[in-house]
Amino acid sequence: MRHLLSTGDLTRDEAVLILDTAAELAQVGDRSVKKLPTLRGRTVVNLFYEDSTRTRTSFEIAAKRLSADVVNFSAKGSSVSKGESLKDTALTLQAMGADGVVIRHGASGAAHRLAGWVDGSVLNAGDGTHEHPTQALLDAYTVRTRLGRLEGLRVAIVGDILHSRVARSNVLLLTTLGAHVTLVAPPTLLPVSVHTWPCEVSYDLDAVLPKTDVVMMLRVQAERMHASFFPSVREYSRGYGMDGARLDRMPRDAIVMHPGPMVRGMEISAEVADSPRCTVVEQVANGVSLRMAVLYLLLGGS
Amino acid sequence: MRHLLSTGDLTRDEAVLILDTAAELAQVGDRSVKKLPTLRGRTVVNLFYEDSTRTRTSFEIAAKRLSADVVNFSAKGSSVSKGESLKDTALTLQAMGADGVVIRHGASGAAHRLAGWVDGSVLNAGDGTHEHPTQALLDAYTVRTRLGRLEGLRVAIVGDILHSRVARSNVLLLTTLGAHVTLVAPPTLLPVSVHTWPCEVSYDLDAVLPKTDVVMMLRVQAERMHASFFPSVREYSRGYGMDGARLDRMPRDAIVMHPGPMVRGMEISAEVADSPRCTVVEQVANGVSLRMAVLYLLLGGS
Amino acid sequence: MRHLLSTGDLTRDEAVLILDTAAELAQVGDRSVKKLPTLRGRTVVNLFYEDSTRTRTSFEIAAKRLSADVVNFSAKGSSVSKGESLKDTALTLQAMGADGVVIRHGASGAAHRLAGWVDGSVLNAGDGTHEHPTQALLDAYTVRTRLGRLEGLRVAIVGDILHSRVARSNVLLLTTLGAHVTLVAPPTLLPVSVHTWPCEVSYDLDAVLPKTDVVMMLRVQAERMHASFFPSVREYSRGYGMDGARLDRMPRDAIVMHPGPMVRGMEISAEVADSPRCTVVEQVANGVSLRMAVLYLLLGGS
Repeated sequence: MRHLLSTGDLTRDEAVLILDTAAELAQVGDRSVKKLPTLRGRTVVNLFYEDSTRTRTSFEIAAKRLSADVVNFSAKGSSVSKGESLKDTALTLQAMGADGVVIRHGASGAAHRLAGWVDGSVLNAGDGTHEHPTQALLDAYTVRTRLGRLEGLRVAIVGDILHSRVARSNVLLLTTLGAHVTLVAPPTLLPVSVHTWPCEVSYDLDAVLPKTDVVMMLRVQAERMHASFFPSVREYSRGYGMDGARLDRMPRDAIVMHPGPMVRGMEISAEVADSPRCTVVEQVANGVSLRMAVLYLLLGGS
Repeated sequence: MRHLLSTGDLTRDEAVLILDTAAELAQVGDRSVKKLPTLRGRTVVNLFYEDSTRTRTSFEIAAKRLSADVVNFSAKGSSVSKGESLKDTALTLQAMGADGVVIRHGASGAAHRLAGWVDGSVLNAGDGTHEHPTQALLDAYTVRTRLGRLEGLRVAIVGDILHSRVARSNVLLLTTLGAHVTLVAPPTLLPVSVHTWPCEVSYDLDAVLPKTDVVMMLRVQAERMHASFFPSVREYSRGYGMDGARLDRMPRDAIVMHPGPMVRGMEISAEVADSPRCTVVEQVANGVSLRMAVLYLLLGGS
Repeated sequence: MRHLLSTGDLTRDEAVLILDTAAELAQVGDRSVKKLPTLRGRTVVNLFYEDSTRTRTSFEIAAKRLSADVVNFSAKGSSVSKGESLKDTALTLQAMGADGVVIRHGASGAAHRLAGWVDGSVLNAGDGTHEHPTQALLDAYTVRTRLGRLEGLRVAIVGDILHSRVARSNVLLLTTLGAHVTLVAPPTLLPVSVHTWPCEVSYDLDAVLPKTDVVMMLRVQAERMHASFFPSVREYSRGYGMDGARLDRMPRDAIVMHPGPMVRGMEISAEVADSPRCTVVEQVANGVSLRMAVLYLLLGGS
């Protein structure tokens, strides 16, 4: 592995190696082992064309725990706003000696293009509505930690599939790891190409829940909900929000996941969000370990 | 001590321990001892909901001199602007492994609430009009360094008490340390509850100065001055500004303090600001040592 | 050397020492030597009153490769916006223990003024239309690396000389190092004082190219071009843009330089930008080594 652009690029063995490495690195940051020297002297650049403090911070902490130097290169107020192309920015970062570039970009495919221009490793931290592979990997890691396995599990991904890079990355990875995925959303929030995805589709959350081990809720953006003809938050919540009643309809060991940040009362009720069956906080913690694993595997070599 | 939320929480012994520790750490950063390894592998998050480059930078330099990893988590453009609550942000930072969170927030009490949600240490870097404990501690440290003691000293705090978190933290700390405090302000810039504070109140700066060892000037915000019925900067300066004539009215060893940034010509004249009896620059230097001391005592244990 | 404010302050020997040091430090960041401990415990503050992610990042990476602590102090949303003067900001940074301050400011002369107020070293990273010495030094370093020498070379600087701090710094440095400089620009983009500069002036790029070893293109800002009576990008490019035909008119070994970010199609064609004779990417890489050299020489002593 040189880059991490899409979970679809990962073989089963590669994905399992990342999850296993994350499990080993999860203890770094504890009292006993605060820091590893692995990436000492390596430079990781956070190249964020869209704001995302959570993801940027998670990568930053992960890189620093491996002793890398981290530089935040925000596109705002930079050469980008002076008309520089992504290619020239890429060549600039490489010339400055970036060993790894973590990129968040509004355009689908930006990370792939970047990877064609630089010698270092590119880590896709979200490109348009395309992919967000580390989110999918940390989700898979969280499921495996909670339920002991991924093979054969039934996973429902619920909400705004159409605009979600998380959904696509999760479908590809979960399928590779042997889980069965069902997308649950109103027709207006599903991509037209959804029939080509390796998963099932349902419009009826209540019908899906009883036979589901893992529910992954997606964040809903109010402005997009409007465009999809939902008259109100209430209407959306009634059809696709996760609340206590729905949680009761699931198997006893089933868990509820959310990539954060949650909008309580919209896609998830406060009761569910604070339930021990909701893994949202674990996902954040696992995100640091998982990103350490990816940085370790991509940049730690030689 | 686990958190530093209010100077009112500190016993006399705890306050003195912080000042003594700051005195010991003041030499770090000199040629001989550039850096201490104490907080190596610890993560300090600067969580700033309000801009304050000075305070953020002071904490950042202090943490780095103790070898901590520092992550700046600005609320702007973050999950906060996507509707995330303070509680969810807190849980996120804890999950990411923050050992200490330095918080600046516009709402009084925000730091206390945060402390209820996280396992790490919370350092209040200013919450609304409530408290700013490290500022009060560095002020006390500066007085002690300059005048040799705090016990029995007469301190006047002058200006916009109503909107000042610095004033409240200073009154509580200075009283604990045995100083006598007088607040000096026009009635419109005093809080209604001021009679419950452990200090005296005066509207007449010129009457107070001759019997004052330390004058602490507060920064005045023009927009607030207007709301308090001062027709002009000139009018305010005439009543409550510190100038050379007023400095002459004070005892010979008396000092003038200011938390910065100063608005020269408003609350303080250039003549006083540049006088050796004005400690504004020392306060900044002492701020780094003091914040090192607090980080050391809160995070350095075990 | 204590500060780096202007290339005009440098003797020939000092300039050569900087270039030679950069050459030695160029290997740091390679696999073998990832990092030098030289500036461990030293604090470098990036004080940027104007956005410049490229320059800020280059200094940040350079300082971190020498193990310095780097603090980014953006003027936006800081005490500066609360009315603090440059002098008070300077005293604040010094009090916080800044060993070096890298300043980018919109006002010509800001770096000089700063140097009068602080004990640490000041590195001018661009002040108004005045100077940008590290850019000139990295340009000279790049020429020397490519062509083996600077003495006797013929250098043309092309474009918006009037608003360029890069042009002035380059003229002063190149002259000191024994090169012959010709400024090429339309009369409206030349400063009135240009006849006092130690160089020649031409309005005719095509006439200059055949006898030129190095062409340094300057970035053109569209809004300024308008003010200088060019009706369009096309018109400007026709007179002063670098394209393949013009490249062919130059001597076979001649190179084309650009400080970046480039606006392809404006001052430089994509064909030239991607040509092996264009050094824009090398300049970025050399910028890190050169800034390491300056930090090393200014801060590394004693």
